[in-house]
Amino acid sequence: MKKLVKNAYLLTMEKEVDGSLRQPFLGEILIDGDNIVQVGEHLNEIETVGVEVIDGKDTLVMPGLVNTHSHAGMSLLRGYGDDLPLNTWLFERVFPVEDNMTPEDVYWGSMLSICEMIRSGTTCFADMYFFADALAEAVAETGIRANISRCIDHSEAKLKESCDFYTKWQGAAGGRITACLSPHSPYLCPPSFLREMAAEAKRLNTFLNIHLAETAKEQADYEREYGKRQMEKLEEVGFFDLPVLGAHLVHISDKELDILARHQVAAAHDPRSNLKLGNGVAPVSKMLAKGLTVSIGTDSSCSNNNLDMFEELRMAALLQKGITGDPTVLPAGETLTCATVNGAAALQLQAEIGTLTVGKKADMIFVDLTKPHMQPGHDKISDLVYAAKGSDVKTVLVNGEILMKNYELLHIDEERVMAAAKQAAQRITAK
Amino acid sequence: MKKLVKNAYLLTMEKEVDGSLRQPFLGEILIDGDNIVQVGEHLNEIETVGVEVIDGKDTLVMPGLVNTHSHAGMSLLRGYGDDLPLNTWLFERVFPVEDNMTPEDVYWGSMLSICEMIRSGTTCFADMYFFADALAEAVAETGIRANISRCIDHSEAKLKESCDFYTKWQGAAGGRITACLSPHSPYLCPPSFLREMAAEAKRLNTFLNIHLAETAKEQADYEREYGKRQMEKLEEVGFFDLPVLGAHLVHISDKELDILARHQVAAAHDPRSNLKLGNGVAPVSKMLAKGLTVSIGTDSSCSNNNLDMFEELRMAALLQKGITGDPTVLPAGETLTCATVNGAAALQLQAEIGTLTVGKKADMIFVDLTKPHMQPGHDKISDLVYAAKGSDVKTVLVNGEILMKNYELLHIDEERVMAAAKQAAQRITAK
Repeated sequence: MKKLVKNAYLLTMEKEVDGSLRQPFLGEILIDGDNIVQVGEHLNEIETVGVEVIDGKDTLVMPGLVNTHSHAGMSLLRGYGDDLPLNTWLFERVFPVEDNMTPEDVYWGSMLSICEMIRSGTTCFADMYFFADALAEAVAETGIRANISRCIDHSEAKLKESCDFYTKWQGAAGGRITACLSPHSPYLCPPSFLREMAAEAKRLNTFLNIHLAETAKEQADYEREYGKRQMEKLEEVGFFDLPVLGAHLVHISDKELDILARHQVAAAHDPRSNLKLGNGVAPVSKMLAKGLTVSIGTDSSCSNNNLDMFEELRMAALLQKGITGDPTVLPAGETLTCATVNGAAALQLQAEIGTLTVGKKADMIFVDLTKPHMQPGHDKISDLVYAAKGSDVKTVLVNGEILMKNYELLHIDEERVMAAAKQAAQRITAK
Repeated sequence: MKKLVKNAYLLTMEKEVDGSLRQPFLGEILIDGDNIVQVGEHLNEIETVGVEVIDGKDTLVMPGLVNTHSHAGMSLLRGYGDDLPLNTWLFERVFPVEDNMTPEDVYWGSMLSICEMIRSGTTCFADMYFFADALAEAVAETGIRANISRCIDHSEAKLKESCDFYTKWQGAAGGRITACLSPHSPYLCPPSFLREMAAEAKRLNTFLNIHLAETAKEQADYEREYGKRQMEKLEEVGFFDLPVLGAHLVHISDKELDILARHQVAAAHDPRSNLKLGNGVAPVSKMLAKGLTVSIGTDSSCSNNNLDMFEELRMAALLQKGITGDPTVLPAGETLTCATVNGAAALQLQAEIGTLTVGKKADMIFVDLTKPHMQPGHDKISDLVYAAKGSDVKTVLVNGEILMKNYELLHIDEERVMAAAKQAAQRITAK
C-alpha cells in the first residue's frame, strides 16, 4: 500500500548546487512499499484512493538518525557502576556481569534499547556485541534497521562465528539487517589477526567496525608494545585497504589523522561516552577539515547513559565550539549531516538511506514543532540541533513501515519489554 | 487545603550523618498551604478527609531544580543567529533586536520560558534582564518562583530603577518573588560603580548577581585597563564583602579562585552556553574542591538553546569528567546537589527551598520512571543525572500549588503564550 505524508515541513538533508543544505519547505512525500517514490511541493493532486495519508501538520519530517556506535544489549547495565575509575567499572562491574549474560538477556536488553532508539528518532544503528543473533532477532521483529556484527577478540573460533553470522544475516529482514566484521580493538586483536580479519572481510565484500584510540593509555601501551601508534600499525598491515568504521578516535596524532584521511576511514564520534569515561574529546573539527566522514554514535547506555541522538549530536556541536574556542565550527547543518548522511555512508548504506530522496528507503522521523522549547522557530535547522529533544519525535517510519505513530510504538509491547529487561538486569547483577 | 503525596520514591536531597546523600525511599509528603509539614515512610495513617491526595506511583519526587542564571525574555531570540562569531552574534543580531523590544515582548518571552521551565522541572530561577517588571508579572501570574533583578550597565538612573524594582517586588507573590541587584559585568560597570552598587545592596540587605570572567578577551582587556584581573579588582573595591552570585567564571586563575573561595562567592555554572559561544569550560572541579557553592544555570535560550536543567546538569557532570580525565569527579549525587541545594543557597533561599524537608516550601517535581531510558533502574540517582530528560517531569508543585499535573500545565494557556511569543519574535526581528 502506498503512503502519502502531507502538510509537513520537509528537511530532505539534500544539498543545493552550492553545497549548502536545502532549507526545509512545506511539501509531501509519496511512499510505495519500502521506497520513497516522490518528494515535492505539488503532490496534492495525487490520487489518494487506496493511499494511507499521514498528516504531518506541525511537524518537520527528516531522515531518521543513524547511530553508528552502540552495544544495544548493554542497556541492562545502565546506571550499574557510574562515577568509577575506568578499570574498576570495567573489571569489577561490566565484565563479571557480562559473564552472566545469556542470549535471552541480550535479546531483552536489545529490545529495551530499540524501544528507546525508535522513541528518540534513531531509525538505523550499528552494533557490535556478543550473542549477535539475539540482537538480529530483535531487529528483525521490531522493524528498525541495523548493521550488526559479532564483536570479537583474538580467536579463530570467534572469527569463524563472526563470518557465519555475516553469511546468515547480511540482507535479512527485507534488507533492514546488514552485517560486517568487528575486531574489538587493536589492543585485543594483534596485527596479524587484524590482517586475517581484513582478508576475511575482503572475501565477504564487507567492511570492518572497530574501536580505535579510545583512551590515552591504550595508545601508550600500543606504542610500547609495537613501536608504533595504532593507525600507523594498522595501515602497515593493510587493515585500512578495506572500508573501516572506527569508533572513538580520541587520542590520535596529526600523522594518524592523515592516515585515516588517506584511507577514507569513517569515524563514529561518541562525545558523551568519551567524556563520561574520562577519555576526553576527539579532534572532530580537524577530522572534518581533512575530509573524514564523521558520523555520530551513542556508545552503550552503560557509558552514556541514554541513546538520545539529539542529545548526542548537540553535544558534538557544542563540544567542538567550546574546545576550539570557535563558535562557527560544526554549524547546525553540518552536525545534522553527520547524524544522517554521514552515518549512512559510514555503514555503506549511502545509496539506501540518509536523505529523503526518490529511490531511497522510506526511513523518516516526524519532529513535533509545537513544544515551547521549539518556539519561536526562527531557524528550524538550528532548533533541531540546539533545542530539540528525542522526546519531540512523534512518528517514525522505517523501510516504509510506521513503527511509532503519535508517540505510540505500534509493533512492540513496551510494558513487557521493560519488565523482562528489568528482570534480566536483576538476575545478571545478583551477587 | 492540605495535600498528601503518596506512593512515590522520595529523594529529599538531604544528607546522611556521614555526608552522603540520603538514598531514595518509598514514602509520603504532607503539605499544608505552601509548606512541607511531614515527610516519611509511615504517613499512611494520616486522616485524608479534606486532603488532596496526589498519587506518585511510578515516579520519583525530588526538590524542583533551581536554574541560577537566565534571561527569560530572550527566548524570542532562540535560533536567531547561531554558529556566528561572538561579536557578530552580539552586535548584529542580539543588540539591534533588543533595541526593538517592549515590556510586552519581554512578558511574552518570559511566559514562553516559564512554560519550558515548568515542563522540564525547574521550579525556581534567577533572572537578570531589562523590563524586569514584565518578567515579575509573568512570575506572579504563573506560580513559579524566581529571583529577579534589573540588569544594568554604568548608569545612576538605572541604579535607581534597580533599587526601586527591588523595593517593589522583594517578597511579592506570596514570597515567590525575591530580588537582588545586578551589575551586568566588570567590563560594563567600572570599579567605582561596582563599589556604589555593593553599598546599595548592603543598604537593601540583598545580594549581587553579576557576569564574571565569561570570555578570555574580557579578562585580557580588563588586565590591560586596570592592571589586575577581575576578581582581584573586585575584591579590592569590597564587592565581595556582600554575598555575590557570579555567572560563568570560565577564565579565572588559581589566585582568583582563592579570592572567590575566601569570600564564599557562589558560582552559576553555565556549561552549555560556555561551550556554544566558544568560551570554554569553567574549572568546576577546582571550585568544588575549594569549597565554592557551585550552582547550575542555563543562560538564555538564545545561547544554549533550551532551558532543560536535566541536560544542563548532565553536561556539567560529563564535561568535568572528560576535561579532567577523571570519571569520578562530579558524581551523580554531587551534581544533583549543585542543581538543587546549591542553587537555593546561591539565591539566599537555603532556608526555603532546595530539599524536601519539614518547614521548607513545597517546591517539588515528579519524575516519570516508566520510560524505556529509565530502565532497568539499578541506581535512581545515577539515572536522574545520566539518563533522565526534562520531558520526564510529569507533575510540578511550587509553593504548595500544582503547576503541572500529568504533563499538563494547569494555570497557563500555553497555546496562547506560544502564539503571542511567535508574533512578538517576528515583530522584533522584522527588518
